[in-house]
Amino acid sequence: MTTRYSTFDTCPPLGVHRTEHACPEHCRGSRRIRHSFEILSTDHRSAARRGLLTTAHGKVETPAFIPVGTAGAVKGITPQQLKETGSVLILANTYHLMLRPGVDVVENLGGLHKLMTWDAPILTDSGGYQLFSLSPLTKIDDDGVEFASHIDGAKIYLNAESATKIQNRLGADIIMCLDQCTPFPCSDSELKKAVVRTLSWAKRAKPAHENPDQLLFAIVQGGINLDLRTHCARELVKLDFDGYAIGGLSVGEGHENMIRTASHTTALLPKDRPRYLMGVGTPADIIAAVRAGVDMFDCVLPTRNGRNAFAFTENGPLRLRNNAHINDTRPIEAGCDCYCCKNFSRAALRHYFKTGEYLGPILVSLHNLRFYQRLMARIRQTIEKNEFADWADEQLKMIIDY
Amino acid sequence: MTTRYSTFDTCPPLGVHRTEHACPEHCRGSRRIRHSFEILSTDHRSAARRGLLTTAHGKVETPAFIPVGTAGAVKGITPQQLKETGSVLILANTYHLMLRPGVDVVENLGGLHKLMTWDAPILTDSGGYQLFSLSPLTKIDDDGVEFASHIDGAKIYLNAESATKIQNRLGADIIMCLDQCTPFPCSDSELKKAVVRTLSWAKRAKPAHENPDQLLFAIVQGGINLDLRTHCARELVKLDFDGYAIGGLSVGEGHENMIRTASHTTALLPKDRPRYLMGVGTPADIIAAVRAGVDMFDCVLPTRNGRNAFAFTENGPLRLRNNAHINDTRPIEAGCDCYCCKNFSRAALRHYFKTGEYLGPILVSLHNLRFYQRLMARIRQTIEKNEFADWADEQLKMIIDY
Repeated sequence: MTTRYSTFDTCPPLGVHRTEHACPEHCRGSRRIRHSFEILSTDHRSAARRGLLTTAHGKVETPAFIPVGTAGAVKGITPQQLKETGSVLILANTYHLMLRPGVDVVENLGGLHKLMTWDAPILTDSGGYQLFSLSPLTKIDDDGVEFASHIDGAKIYLNAESATKIQNRLGADIIMCLDQCTPFPCSDSELKKAVVRTLSWAKRAKPAHENPDQLLFAIVQGGINLDLRTHCARELVKLDFDGYAIGGLSVGEGHENMIRTASHTTALLPKDRPRYLMGVGTPADIIAAVRAGVDMFDCVLPTRNGRNAFAFTENGPLRLRNNAHINDTRPIEAGCDCYCCKNFSRAALRHYFKTGEYLGPILVSLHNLRFYQRLMARIRQTIEKNEFADWADEQLKMIIDY
Repeated sequence: MTTRYSTFDTCPPLGVHRTEHACPEHCRGSRRIRHSFEILSTDHRSAARRGLLTTAHGKVETPAFIPVGTAGAVKGITPQQLKETGSVLILANTYHLMLRPGVDVVENLGGLHKLMTWDAPILTDSGGYQLFSLSPLTKIDDDGVEFASHIDGAKIYLNAESATKIQNRLGADIIMCLDQCTPFPCSDSELKKAVVRTLSWAKRAKPAHENPDQLLFAIVQGGINLDLRTHCARELVKLDFDGYAIGGLSVGEGHENMIRTASHTTALLPKDRPRYLMGVGTPADIIAAVRAGVDMFDCVLPTRNGRNAFAFTENGPLRLRNNAHINDTRPIEAGCDCYCCKNFSRAALRHYFKTGEYLGPILVSLHNLRFYQRLMARIRQTIEKNEFADWADEQLKMIIDY
């Protein structure tokens, strides 16, 4: 592992300079940054790797799954319950938080960790994805994006610099460059325009980044056009980011296209930086993407499906509203160590869903998160033992495509 | 404390007889019942008493507050979280459970304790209150009540015997006789009719009761007509129930009427049986009713108000949607040991309510339940120390009428 240093000067009496300025009396040079990424082991028969990501709020073992806490909470789940699922790094959405409660409020409270009562690592996205998926009336140009709040229609402008500065102020451990996300399908000319903008915005995000304790990740775009992915990845790597995300996937292109694109992209990224496949995915997506060299994943599937009475199990999905469960005293999954499985029958869960009791969504979300974190632990273990490729082959043959 | 015995014969090889029958070879007489009520201390200047109610699923210190888990769950709260609020005895509604998931299902699962994952005491109401408040097309006669399910309109018939047998099968530790609940205001002739029916149904419920491990409580009705309350209480006491509830209050009659009626009624009830004021109430209601000799209370206030961003504190209510809390880093209540107060700022809670995040309702419900259980602990402590009357006077002078 190479020790890396912040490009920010330190100033003992004042702390880290948040903006570059002359400080001839205090500044004594660069400071060792508080984050690092270390590869602990690699699989011999695939691109899979096991790593340790160190952040200002603790360490994350990779490959890692990141639960989604959109507006500063994983829906219905307390931080204590979330910890018990084995989750370490969690995601919050810049777009939602900048609208409500607003960056000033989060900053006044002492940052996102305080708002969310989460003392472990947090990642914020840049808002790019939501601008294109949630916002009506989005106007985009080479500088940035004007959008109307999906809550009250208020016009808000976001560009490379402001998206970065907002994330500096929110205070997550990992932050993302603003990118232009493309839908699927998308013409090559549109994909190209998005890549050009994403590159230009990444270039501008870097000098705008003012908190050396945060890792800044850039996002590779280009849809499923591998040439554009190559171009985008190479140009971003030249800019030397703390990590690289693969964006614009899991938007309808399908498993094969997704994995081909991820695999192509990871091969272009530096080995010593974490790789993050955004918004992915099913257990099969994750296993295949780890095999392709991906280290991090975030996805709403375990929690959104959990709220809809859909439980992940090693034997395939369980739909808990089904009549089949009406008298079933078994837990969702035998042997599962989650709070739900240790305490509740399928019959009780079915009853909660049928009567609209919110315990149902909570308990199945907890189970699904535990299922995902157990999957990640298994992935890390098989990489460690150099058994990952065989295990993944076997899993992908028999795995249920959720 | 007088040791009481079940009127049910025991039969060592077969266990407790669920119905009376001849068993000359096995039966060796009566069995000591698994429940008891013991008065530990009484307040010298009021009717308040501190007691210990023993049930088949454990002991309950009285005066006790009983959280409401209508359909087999306290909304959004896991059993583990509920335990942490200091709650011991919880309530579930027979009416809701008989409709969904149905008595057969609950019985097949092994009873209500299994369904709810609650190993401590449970109380079920008889369904009487809901028949009059929730059900359209209720037809009542001297035998029982025909009602249409508020879910699918299906016609269901409930009478003294079936309400008792259903509760035998649900398996709560404390069950209630079917009663006729009256609205407020209500004519004396209507009140009288309801008292006559409530008495007749209680008389029929007793022999129908088939599980000696459950305490069977009768309910005193009579609105705010003290003569009718006297008549109802005296007749019920002759029938010798395990406990007595005061029903038909907290329906709009106001604090003074409620406490006058409760006080009048408790004086007519045997000292050695628990007294339960149903559906009550605010902190002031509870303190005044304890002073009047009540031992048990159930109410949706802490949880329903919690879901509506209303927090109880010693300094009065806190409405967490208010702009005043936007940057407030303080907990709901300084020094409160609940999970919410130990971890979340008012600002975070406000944010959760404003964004519709279900963590808000969960966390404020937890705080409010803890607030109520702390109030009950304080009540028990002041009775123990013979300081209750003074403390109650002081509280009732300054207490905020929620």
